[in-house]
Amino acid sequence: MPEINLKFFISDAQYSALDSCYEFFRKEIKMKIVKYTDIEPVEFNNEVAMGIKARILIGKNDGAENFCMRIFKIAENGYTPRHTHEWEHEMFIHSGRGEVLDGNEWRPVSPGTAIFIPGNVEHQIKNSGSEPLVMLCIIPSGVPEL
Amino acid sequence: MPEINLKFFISDAQYSALDSCYEFFRKEIKMKIVKYTDIEPVEFNNEVAMGIKARILIGKNDGAENFCMRIFKIAENGYTPRHTHEWEHEMFIHSGRGEVLDGNEWRPVSPGTAIFIPGNVEHQIKNSGSEPLVMLCIIPSGVPEL
Repeated sequence: MPEINLKFFISDAQYSALDSCYEFFRKEIKMKIVKYTDIEPVEFNNEVAMGIKARILIGKNDGAENFCMRIFKIAENGYTPRHTHEWEHEMFIHSGRGEVLDGNEWRPVSPGTAIFIPGNVEHQIKNSGSEPLVMLCIIPSGVPEL
Repeated sequence: MPEINLKFFISDAQYSALDSCYEFFRKEIKMKIVKYTDIEPVEFNNEVAMGIKARILIGKNDGAENFCMRIFKIAENGYTPRHTHEWEHEMFIHSGRGEVLDGNEWRPVSPGTAIFIPGNVEHQIKNSGSEPLVMLCIIPSGVPEL
């Protein structure tokens, strides 16, 4: 591709003004406090992932460099995909009742249950109650946030 | 220090038996499902950290390599230390009512609130309700788990 070089000469005052603009638009990493219900969900509703409302609570757009907190609300009879991937999950059940596939066994989970799914371990979560199942799922950075 | 060299000659069967022992004791990283109330808490109850029951839900002992999930139950009138450190927190309020210090302002939090505290930002959380404040707090690996 042809290359174009542009050169500008600006005054100190102009330079200072540009620098202020840059400061203004530079992403400031600050404390974030948000109610999950105030975030617009992304919905998944198909054979693979049924009745899911997914939200990123804290992620790379907030300046979170090491891990990402998501929350999933799974409707009655809903479920997440049965799948395997290299990265781990750290989950926590906030409300509702469900079951987690551990090998060939479905194990019950309820509010206050923490679940560690190591990388490369097949997993699936389903709602087995009559209320929505609301659960946190934290993943390392560098993989898709949703 | 003086050095001692020991050499053993063992049969193939003995070698195989030793190898099986090694396999048995090698740490297997597998799925973990635990109710937080089934974990014995570490208590903090002093001027700096008042009325705190702390539990590690998922950490390095479980094979979690990237981040550590803890849960804190803060009694009525209790609070965490007002402090600053290099690493971030990703928090989530499971139950109860509280306030988070954000600069000079105390901001209310309640069940379903997520809180991102970037590294090097001063913070403190207090229970401002009449029930225990139960909150998750996830930290990156490589810093003290409690």
